[in-house]
Formats: sequence, C-alpha cells, structure tokens
Amino acid sequence: MPRQRVTLITLGVADLDRAREFYTAWGWQPYDGPDKGIVFFQMNGAVLGLFGLQDLAKDQGRPGASLGTGAMTLAQNCADDAETDAVFQAALQAGATALKQPEKVFWGGYSGYFADPDGHVWEIATNPFWPLEKDGSLILPAPQG
Amino acid sequence: MPRQRVTLITLGVADLDRAREFYTAWGWQPYDGPDKGIVFFQMNGAVLGLFGLQDLAKDQGRPGASLGTGAMTLAQNCADDAETDAVFQAALQAGATALKQPEKVFWGGYSGYFADPDGHVWEIATNPFWPLEKDGSLILPAPQG
Repeated sequence: MPRQRVTLITLGVADLDRAREFYTAWGWQPYDGPDKGIVFFQMNGAVLGLFGLQDLAKDQGRPGASLGTGAMTLAQNCADDAETDAVFQAALQAGATALKQPEKVFWGGYSGYFADPDGHVWEIATNPFWPLEKDGSLILPAPQG
Repeated sequence: MPRQRVTLITLGVADLDRAREFYTAWGWQPYDGPDKGIVFFQMNGAVLGLFGLQDLAKDQGRPGASLGTGAMTLAQNCADDAETDAVFQAALQAGATALKQPEKVFWGGYSGYFADPDGHVWEIATNPFWPLEKDGSLILPAPQG
C-alpha cells in the first residue's frame, strides 16, 4: 500500500445540517450511507466527511479541546479560469465567505480563497503548470531536468 | 470535471525544514520540483503541500491572521490493524505526538490519532467496512438497500 495517501478528510462543524446544506448547495452530492451523525462525500479516490466539532475533539482523544481552522487548507484545481470563477461564485451563492476573490497570482496561476460556514478554508485555482487528469485528479508533472 | 474533488491539501508550518524532515522520516518522498519555498508530496490523485504559516495566511488574503489546527483532520486508512499500528508507530518515531493510541473504536474499526510537529491532526485507521482500492484509494461501497 503506498505510504503517501490521504483517504479521508474530516471537517469539524458546529452545525451538521448547516454544513450539509452548504456543500449540497455548492453542488456536492452526499453519500447515502447508514451513518446519520456524519456526512460523507465521495471524491477523487478519497472521501470528505462532515462531523460535529465536539464529536471530532472527543474522537481525537481531546474532549473539550478548542479546534482551530485555517492552517490546513483544501484546494480544488480547475481546468481554466472560467471554471475557477464558476466554482468560486457557486460557493459564495451557497453561503461561503470570500477571503480573496480569484485573481492572477505571482506564481503564474489564478486563485481565490473562501471560508465555508465553519471557517474551513478552500482555495479554488487554475494552475497552468499542473494539467489535471481526466477524472480531475492531480498527478504532478515529471520534474524538469 | 467532477465537482467533488480535492487536488491539493496545504499544511501551514512554522518551520519548513522541520516539517519536511518529519514527513520524510515518516517515509514520504518529496517531489523534486522547482519551488524551494514549498514542499510537495504526490498522493493518490492529489498532492500534499507544506508551506510557511505566514505565507499561507498572506496567500489567503489574511496577512497576520492566526491560523488554527485540529478542526480539519486527515486520515489514512490502512489494510489491517497491523499496518495501522506500523504507520502510527513510524509517525511517533519521526517526531509526531500521540493523541490517542490506536484502539478498537465504537464504529467497529481500529483507530489512532497523532499530531504532526505543527499540530496538524492525522488519524490512522482500519475500517473493515471500507475496503481500499489496490492503489490505496478509497471508493465508498454502494449503499445497502
């Protein structure tokens, strides 16, 4: 089994219904599984989960811990700037808070940031140096010699 | 392009060299790319990045923001409990802090949590209800009717 894997990303949320509504309004379809206290979304080879903040702290073995956001961010790379704009605007319409509207950035791409209703930070970006696979996955290009 | 994707997970770190050393000591191999101010690791269809905390806050359009950890966790599902133990112990030997040693948990799996040197929380787990693909990716099983 390859060591360099993430199979599940869990977002601690203050209100599970509100969080589910945000992600579905953004266009994501929840997994119709048996667990009602957690919401899963199938992604490209991995799963995104929404779970109560206190339940997450307890699960981590730190009941009562105050869990913070922002130092870990999720990015969705898009095929082009128009798709980046569309995905970003759809998030705002679903209730996200814009941190930085998509703009040309110093490294040659086009990138914006938003926070979901719980403060989890997403970057939506076009990176012309990183073409995407047909299924939307990202495989880094071979290093230039 | 499928909407339900994460292509890049970025961890804000206080000391890039320390963070790179932790992940390489845990057995990960950095991508030999041109950018020296950021460290990338190829994963299953997505990429993990290490980036300075202040650079990340600035990139988010919030220079000086205090970014928190713990409310977003990364999980690596393993093939069996022995692999979960081995991956978990390798992380501790690489410098991680155990939050909860792997143990049998209420939902029927086997799971432990650790924090990396910057406080980013990883879960290492066996989930008998979620068999993994050959490449280590996770595709959720069809819901039971």
